[in-house]
Amino acid sequence: MERGRLVYEGKAKSLYEHPEDENLLVMEFRDDITAFNMEKMDTVEGKGVYNCLISARLFEVLEDAGIPTHYVELADERRMVVERLDMFNLEVICRNMATGSLVERLPFEEGEKLDPPIVEFDYKSDEYGDPMVNMDHIRALGLATEEEVERMRELTLQVNEVLSEFLKDCDIILVDFKLEFGVNPDGEVVVGDEISPDTCRFWDAETEESLDKDIFRKDEGDVLAGYREAAERILRGDEEKLAMLPG
Amino acid sequence: MERGRLVYEGKAKSLYEHPEDENLLVMEFRDDITAFNMEKMDTVEGKGVYNCLISARLFEVLEDAGIPTHYVELADERRMVVERLDMFNLEVICRNMATGSLVERLPFEEGEKLDPPIVEFDYKSDEYGDPMVNMDHIRALGLATEEEVERMRELTLQVNEVLSEFLKDCDIILVDFKLEFGVNPDGEVVVGDEISPDTCRFWDAETEESLDKDIFRKDEGDVLAGYREAAERILRGDEEKLAMLPG
Repeated sequence: MERGRLVYEGKAKSLYEHPEDENLLVMEFRDDITAFNMEKMDTVEGKGVYNCLISARLFEVLEDAGIPTHYVELADERRMVVERLDMFNLEVICRNMATGSLVERLPFEEGEKLDPPIVEFDYKSDEYGDPMVNMDHIRALGLATEEEVERMRELTLQVNEVLSEFLKDCDIILVDFKLEFGVNPDGEVVVGDEISPDTCRFWDAETEESLDKDIFRKDEGDVLAGYREAAERILRGDEEKLAMLPG
Repeated sequence: MERGRLVYEGKAKSLYEHPEDENLLVMEFRDDITAFNMEKMDTVEGKGVYNCLISARLFEVLEDAGIPTHYVELADERRMVVERLDMFNLEVICRNMATGSLVERLPFEEGEKLDPPIVEFDYKSDEYGDPMVNMDHIRALGLATEEEVERMRELTLQVNEVLSEFLKDCDIILVDFKLEFGVNPDGEVVVGDEISPDTCRFWDAETEESLDKDIFRKDEGDVLAGYREAAERILRGDEEKLAMLPG
């Protein structure tokens, strides 16, 4: 597939115009990895491929469950075709277990089960460090309507149920994850961005070892090996994508 | 009035048992003043009296408007009789204009009008620095039920309307304020704590000068003179309390 004009460059992905359809974009997963609001940065060769294939698989799982996403199809091992969305400047976090910033901010025990899960909305901003917001802030800043926020929350909880169940069969605990949403050309609120070890905490169901960006955040070993392990489990049975895995 | 056993000592107030009624407490307003989670501390002689008299007056204004509070009566110029409450570990902030931590945390302009006002719930904790929480955190930490949170929000907005109107007649803008709530012996959610220049931002309606703890936070002049000015305006027409003002 030809590469159109660059539309947006994020910290780990680039978005290009689709060569044929202005309602579509091509999302390219780069090998860059960052943490702590870009205080820590590196390049991990091959990471983009794992994230692209994992995201594609998980978007397919969601679509199969009737949850609307921007995903259309894979273009190749590190690029996918997605719907062009008008993105909300919000990150929606869903937590099934307490870890990371939550246990620093509030009196939860590390690893404490959260049932029902905790959903948080953060204002997506490098300048402000993605601060948590409530409906009053969202309204005052014009980030979304109350109806849109309710829909994002509802979809987030559905995503959580579907992916937690799917990942359980991959011997992975979905500890927490971050979603971004946008409005597609049909005016529908859908899941955008990616769903990968960069945006989720995946723990091995046996050992509770991280198979995600925490390996990078905490310097806890071989980042690529962790992402590869996550990919091999999540793509199990999907021969087409397994064949795209590096080496 | 005799002083009963000390029940609780906060940063600027002490609570004593009531000598005659176990459902009541005596709240004493001390002259201690702190800011930035106790990084800054001082004693301002006479401050406790201003806060006590201002709080008493504002609680009376709320009670007259049908808003339930813990206030029963003044005991003397720095002590009031209040109902014994089972307090929520929450601080409820209501903002009519953007200033303070809000403009540091989020892209609001200093002094920007917020209409409708923004209401925030913080987990009251010196250890954690009073972090903002949402309903999911409140539920998971067992801080309050959804119904109680809704009631606190409703009462906060009512307090805002009543006090904004009252203070306008005192040539004071109610910029923002913090409330604490508790459940009284009848099982009712009521406004507790204090309503004073320690817990509100009061701006002179003409000059927008602070008549509140920001004078202390920002080292912007004579703290006591600011509190005295607020007191004189708020107590206007209340001869009994005016007579209790120092010097």
